[in-house]
Amino acid sequence: MRILLLGAGGVGDAFARIAARRNFFDALVIADFDLARAQRTVAAVRERHPDEQRMTAARVDASDSAAVTALIKEHNSTHVMNAVDPRFVMPIFTGAFDAGADYLDMAMSMSRPNAELPYAQTGVKLGDEQFARSSEWEEAGRLALVGMGVEPGLSDVFARYAADHLFSEIDELGVRDGGNLVVDGYDFAPSFSIWTTIEECLNPPVIWERDRGWFVTEPFSEPEVFDFPGGIGPVECVNVEHEEVLLMPRWVDAKRVTFKYGLGTEFIDVLKTLHKLGLDSTQPVNVNGRAVSPRDVVAACLPNPATLGDRMRGATCAGLWVTGTGRDGKPREVYLSHVVDNADSMDTYGAQCVVWQTAINPVVALELLATGQWSGTGVLGPEAFDAVPFLELLGSGAPSGYGSPWTLQDR
Amino acid sequence: MRILLLGAGGVGDAFARIAARRNFFDALVIADFDLARAQRTVAAVRERHPDEQRMTAARVDASDSAAVTALIKEHNSTHVMNAVDPRFVMPIFTGAFDAGADYLDMAMSMSRPNAELPYAQTGVKLGDEQFARSSEWEEAGRLALVGMGVEPGLSDVFARYAADHLFSEIDELGVRDGGNLVVDGYDFAPSFSIWTTIEECLNPPVIWERDRGWFVTEPFSEPEVFDFPGGIGPVECVNVEHEEVLLMPRWVDAKRVTFKYGLGTEFIDVLKTLHKLGLDSTQPVNVNGRAVSPRDVVAACLPNPATLGDRMRGATCAGLWVTGTGRDGKPREVYLSHVVDNADSMDTYGAQCVVWQTAINPVVALELLATGQWSGTGVLGPEAFDAVPFLELLGSGAPSGYGSPWTLQDR
Repeated sequence: MRILLLGAGGVGDAFARIAARRNFFDALVIADFDLARAQRTVAAVRERHPDEQRMTAARVDASDSAAVTALIKEHNSTHVMNAVDPRFVMPIFTGAFDAGADYLDMAMSMSRPNAELPYAQTGVKLGDEQFARSSEWEEAGRLALVGMGVEPGLSDVFARYAADHLFSEIDELGVRDGGNLVVDGYDFAPSFSIWTTIEECLNPPVIWERDRGWFVTEPFSEPEVFDFPGGIGPVECVNVEHEEVLLMPRWVDAKRVTFKYGLGTEFIDVLKTLHKLGLDSTQPVNVNGRAVSPRDVVAACLPNPATLGDRMRGATCAGLWVTGTGRDGKPREVYLSHVVDNADSMDTYGAQCVVWQTAINPVVALELLATGQWSGTGVLGPEAFDAVPFLELLGSGAPSGYGSPWTLQDR
Repeated sequence: MRILLLGAGGVGDAFARIAARRNFFDALVIADFDLARAQRTVAAVRERHPDEQRMTAARVDASDSAAVTALIKEHNSTHVMNAVDPRFVMPIFTGAFDAGADYLDMAMSMSRPNAELPYAQTGVKLGDEQFARSSEWEEAGRLALVGMGVEPGLSDVFARYAADHLFSEIDELGVRDGGNLVVDGYDFAPSFSIWTTIEECLNPPVIWERDRGWFVTEPFSEPEVFDFPGGIGPVECVNVEHEEVLLMPRWVDAKRVTFKYGLGTEFIDVLKTLHKLGLDSTQPVNVNGRAVSPRDVVAACLPNPATLGDRMRGATCAGLWVTGTGRDGKPREVYLSHVVDNADSMDTYGAQCVVWQTAINPVVALELLATGQWSGTGVLGPEAFDAVPFLELLGSGAPSGYGSPWTLQDR
């Protein structure tokens, strides 16, 4: 397996740090719009692994699918790992297909709200553009594994596991994400890409119900306090647009699928204010004669989340809360989750916990594809594959496994 | 009198509309960085006053004092009226001095926080750079009348009036500004320049006390609900950095001078969020390789307040609350104020009420200078002049006066 990683931001950098400990691949080209950033990642990996010879840095414009195709061909890459922000999903997805490579991402093609009823009916949904091309991928015998980070990603693996091994009937698959991270020395410092966070939080949140199909609500709807494990405790969660709601109903039987994000009151207020002022917009405004995207300015004003690991304290939790009827016919409620403490990911990998937790899952998935434990063609979500080998490889101890345990909590 | 008006934004445009009804000047050159904007103002005035021949449009870069000097000389201007944002005070002030013209502004040279104790001690104060040059102006026999809008401006005239005619001893001169304006069709639409509002609200608010001199506090300190007249009612006010606190103690005897702005909770929250994210900053950030000032982007995202008159409803109130001992030796408390209803300023002048209320006061002041009722040399605030002719000219009916009454409320 020869991997082309696109994007040496927080998640891409953590991907390389995690992959450096594994033997399943022969080459990893790390490409970024900013070559120096890709080179920094290669150098950081070599600092911890002086013998690492499989990684090289390259420059690429991810908005140009022909450039992506050319880079894949230049390096004979068999798998393209997309770790840039969701704006670039389609050119990379297309570039990989045109080059005959398999493709993985951690966020799907973007949504566009319904023109008439933006907070009631869906418009173009997350992933629609990718799923529309599934038959092409299938016919070409190639795989696009979409939404293969932690959320979406591990959360979808949990859904498949719950359906196959824990429940006879599922009422709700409810992804619930929360943490208690604080960043010392900043008034406000998101632990994940603000560009992506704005995108997912201010788009109309999507919900799926068996009788209604997909529908959307106002942003920040249905606030609920969810009690997270790992010492995190109760956090206020609200509906957010997220890929799981689009993925899970395609492969897992349930009455309802939701995603709620534990943003907390302060973050919600910040996002509402950005929206009120139009600062969330990606449409350029005229600033002294120059076109500038307000959201890019917001991102430029905040510290790069990938560089905050040293100043961060606390843990992040990704998980799936499932209700329904257990295998014994009795009502059952479980929370399947994966908690990462920032001190641990910093100690072992030099990566902050949020980007590390996102990045470890596609490494595990690629290893399962390399060994043949997972295989498939077409555009598939993580829940299209058997959950057991994934959860075993992720949770079991080194050197065979990744030593990052997940837990099942009966509630 | 031959006036050069710098800036055809909201206030500059209203200045021209108001001046068009008066005969005290011979020429008004309206200069802006954007010539088309200056031309729009001239055209708008001619629409209401087809015989108006005194006004012409010009282009100027107000950051270049030599260009300001050249423009003054080109037009033989006797008085320079500065109606651009406070960043340009010093080049215009200098340009006017070098050309031998008199000068008026509505905001003074900018402050810089104290490096060690930014929320306790003053650094460079508002107007310090201008007052430092007062003796030069005096020696040249020229006048710089600073802070001559509504606040500062009319509020300072009120202070002089209270000291001369209402009180034997003043405890506090408290400027209190509030309104009940709403703008239809926008989630958030400030009625005054957001650039200036951020500047005055996020700088450490300054207070003067006889025993302590000038000192500063945290932004938004000492919240108080003040009951405004004119149907506005109670509004939450907080301390804000404003010129009156620097001006009044120089000429009017009092124990304490404060400025509180009725921002309201929503606006305060927006400003706090902008500050938390660094979006209030004027220091450029790198956005995709280009240097961009975040505060300029915030301004570019919001509608131009000068264009909102048609969608605005309500009134704005500027005033001075004075406590102390009356002329009869008894405790006295008054609120001197000036209320403008947006419907009135739109009907009569086609200008929204906030910019109109700012602009009318320097027109009145220039008329008093033209007729010789006011005169002086050096750098002077409005309270250095007799308040009575100003208040008479402002409040008495047309055609002799401006027909914009002020009120005295004993509390």
